Amino acid sequence: MTDLLFKKLVSTLSSLPGIGKKSAYRLGFHILRMDATAFSNFIESIESVKSNLKFCKKCAGITEFEICEICTGESRLKNILCVVELPEDIFFIENTGEYKGKYHVLNGVISPLDGIGPENLRIKELLERLKDEPVEEVLLATNPTLEGDATASYLFNLLRATGIKLTRIAHGVTVGSTLEYADQYTLGKAIKSRLTI
Amino acid sequence: MTDLLFKKLVSTLSSLPGIGKKSAYRLGFHILRMDATAFSNFIESIESVKSNLKFCKKCAGITEFEICEICTGESRLKNILCVVELPEDIFFIENTGEYKGKYHVLNGVISPLDGIGPENLRIKELLERLKDEPVEEVLLATNPTLEGDATASYLFNLLRATGIKLTRIAHGVTVGSTLEYADQYTLGKAIKSRLTI
Repeated sequence: MTDLLFKKLVSTLSSLPGIGKKSAYRLGFHILRMDATAFSNFIESIESVKSNLKFCKKCAGITEFEICEICTGESRLKNILCVVELPEDIFFIENTGEYKGKYHVLNGVISPLDGIGPENLRIKELLERLKDEPVEEVLLATNPTLEGDATASYLFNLLRATGIKLTRIAHGVTVGSTLEYADQYTLGKAIKSRLTI
Repeated sequence: MTDLLFKKLVSTLSSLPGIGKKSAYRLGFHILRMDATAFSNFIESIESVKSNLKFCKKCAGITEFEICEICTGESRLKNILCVVELPEDIFFIENTGEYKGKYHVLNGVISPLDGIGPENLRIKELLERLKDEPVEEVLLATNPTLEGDATASYLFNLLRATGIKLTRIAHGVTVGSTLEYADQYTLGKAIKSRLTI
């Protein structure tokens, strides 16, 4: 019975992304060792996010409101729209401090093997926004993976007739790293996209 | 505000062992995407373990009762006691199916750098159990690390006058691996502890 209860927790924890069985045991015992205050803070922190946050009706980023603070933000540029795969990508881009426009989350990428086609992504919503909003540039910021690149290509073909400027995040050598550690494709792209200094 | 709430969750999750900041974002979004049923099952599974499990008064393994099912189990051998560092080690050893005796959790290892001496471990409790229980063999199963080995040596010196047989888990080459991948110390120990076939 003790076993069953703990194993249920282990199986719950190991269903989380990136958590294997050994990590799940470690997490489970960590939770078991928390004192009452730490444990109630832990649960409360998870529950308050879960009950207060939802997905923005416009961009599908996370928010407490119907429409998120980036979509309604007066200080954000209205003429540039950054298309990302997932809501978490917004956080990663916001962390750079390099982008001041709006976002649009696709909620995935085109992936025929997983049965995900363009109709499963928020592309119809994107086209509607491009009609309604004064967007002059769409920055395609899907991941530089096979599926992310294919999705960017699909959107490029779909949108190029609109006359809106279409851009893609640059490939290149990691900042602070050395050429030795860049793979040949990345280094090749970094040379092709070389900048005049 | 949205940011603050989510960042609080990220910082809570990244305080868990083995969870970095990027994993914490991933976990946070995964939790956000769970439907209501999956989420309540998730929270319930954590809370039921937390409220129902405690540490056994005898061996310090986890249990729902005052004394755990291994300590009270009639089918377990009473003459062999396996000494481990942490309660989770009991799970790992039980999973092997190779051990049928009882356990004793030290709740740590001797580690002078962390200010942990023998007096901070459950060694007094171990000595009491050896007086009360018909133990004929103590299997020292602390980890094969510097601290784990030092703790095993300490217990060996402490217990050798009792006449109880003292054993230590074997070092050797990982099953299914090749000699190439065994480090020199492990391979050296595997050769020293070689078995007649």
